[in-house]
Amino acid sequence: MTLIHAQEWLNTDSPPGPDDLKGRIVAVEAFQMLCPGCVSHGLPQAQRIRQTFRAEDVTVLGLHSVFEHHEAMTPVALKAFLHEYRIRFPVAVDMPGKGPMPRTMSDWGLEGTPTLILFDRQGRMRARHFGQVPDMAVGGEIMQLMLEREGS
Amino acid sequence: MTLIHAQEWLNTDSPPGPDDLKGRIVAVEAFQMLCPGCVSHGLPQAQRIRQTFRAEDVTVLGLHSVFEHHEAMTPVALKAFLHEYRIRFPVAVDMPGKGPMPRTMSDWGLEGTPTLILFDRQGRMRARHFGQVPDMAVGGEIMQLMLEREGS
Amino acid sequence: MTLIHAQEWLNTDSPPGPDDLKGRIVAVEAFQMLCPGCVSHGLPQAQRIRQTFRAEDVTVLGLHSVFEHHEAMTPVALKAFLHEYRIRFPVAVDMPGKGPMPRTMSDWGLEGTPTLILFDRQGRMRARHFGQVPDMAVGGEIMQLMLEREGS
Amino acid sequence: MTLIHAQEWLNTDSPPGPDDLKGRIVAVEAFQMLCPGCVSHGLPQAQRIRQTFRAEDVTVLGLHSVFEHHEAMTPVALKAFLHEYRIRFPVAVDMPGKGPMPRTMSDWGLEGTPTLILFDRQGRMRARHFGQVPDMAVGGEIMQLMLEREGS
Repeated sequence: MTLIHAQEWLNTDSPPGPDDLKGRIVAVEAFQMLCPGCVSHGLPQAQRIRQTFRAEDVTVLGLHSVFEHHEAMTPVALKAFLHEYRIRFPVAVDMPGKGPMPRTMSDWGLEGTPTLILFDRQGRMRARHFGQVPDMAVGGEIMQLMLEREGS
Repeated sequence: MTLIHAQEWLNTDSPPGPDDLKGRIVAVEAFQMLCPGCVSHGLPQAQRIRQTFRAEDVTVLGLHSVFEHHEAMTPVALKAFLHEYRIRFPVAVDMPGKGPMPRTMSDWGLEGTPTLILFDRQGRMRARHFGQVPDMAVGGEIMQLMLEREGS
Repeated sequence: MTLIHAQEWLNTDSPPGPDDLKGRIVAVEAFQMLCPGCVSHGLPQAQRIRQTFRAEDVTVLGLHSVFEHHEAMTPVALKAFLHEYRIRFPVAVDMPGKGPMPRTMSDWGLEGTPTLILFDRQGRMRARHFGQVPDMAVGGEIMQLMLEREGS
Repeated sequence: MTLIHAQEWLNTDSPPGPDDLKGRIVAVEAFQMLCPGCVSHGLPQAQRIRQTFRAEDVTVLGLHSVFEHHEAMTPVALKAFLHEYRIRFPVAVDMPGKGPMPRTMSDWGLEGTPTLILFDRQGRMRARHFGQVPDMAVGGEIMQLMLEREGS
């Protein structure tokens, strides 16, 4: 899997490394805790991915990629946010980059938040949805990745 | 495809016969025009199936299976309903059965409305969801059927 | 109160006459059973008026004013509709008029459905909201009518 | 008006003092920026109060009363939050109290967030709604206060 550059992981004692994710579909929700569309759409959708697919098939991760209001969206604030919004999946705090955009966000070519990124079993990025994408389409895309043969 | 016993088809000049549906995924929304859950959930979901998948991959059909208030939900009333709710996909009016339940509904073992029924390319019924089923799960199921090899 | 010309009343054994409504605020929801905006907005709002204000202060009535698809929205169909949507307040079936528009609708100068009409204690029409009007504004208007002195 | 003990005001250059509020209805939305019910219900309702009533009749204020996760909900974070959620009305940052509950929140006997508090023209607290209160009821209550005679 294209590396997540995390300065810290929340909601997990054993942050997933590239090897842990090999052979699994990975859905990453890139968000900012003070981004209204992330709160109303992106994060609830990530929760629904988790409810719909089995954990052994699809791993759901959050990526807190702050590119504005850095002083407001600190890891301490994020911890409180995850608690209040009952978000239980592992969340990586994206590492600072060279400019305002953090490093993973920049490496992955993300345009903003929320963005839902899907990786296949070989760790290749297969989808990158900025903004709102309907649940039905997401369900179809994830299933498509699940049914690909290993090695294909 | 398990036969739809229609006394009439609306929204189409050429009702789909079993042969037309061979080789395609078919999603049938069984509903009653005065069923609140059909209006708020089932029919909008059927519309979203149509928006998400290409017409050459998935055929969406309605099945008006009236098992109560027969005098209120006549074909004439259904026509006005489809017009007002802008439902454009073909809708079969289920044939009367021996009791209050119409014939296709009874043949297919449906419990009530709304029910979303999915058929694979061989015309086999593969899912039958009574009540509310989340969009994400439906998207996954349809994709799974789409990716099955013919003859498998 | 400006007369409701009803060919029939549903949900009541004792249709309210002008004298019964004297001295009360009356909220009339004019609707058609196959009008999507009536189902999603107008009728639920009428239900909330009933839940918010006491029955001795505000009387909520429905007015089924059919001006299109007359053959689909018959009193028999309306009865089934009210049952399925659990609408319990009295509903008048508007009398046929000279053209497609029924008589009360025409007398009151209504533009379409849904329309919420408010009458004060003297039976004067004080508001006529065609389309969507926010709950907060409706709550304010009804309270304003309630607090008017009799005879003012 | 019962005094707001503010350590800071946001969204205004001239914080309203008790004298400024005399003779006006005041609606105060007590909230915490990381409280989900405040984001989904309380603050949008405060915005709707502003849209429904004229500014010369009803003054809408926010009160950021943090009683948990103090380290996350700092004034700096609040500033970013108000910007992202497009909240334009003046917001007081409640002063620290003796325990975890801030001072105004404690003085006013608030149970949690969100709470909508209504003051009449004499500055008397007339309503205190903890949790969700329907828009229609709020509209009615505000109108009731507006129609009270001065001095009554």
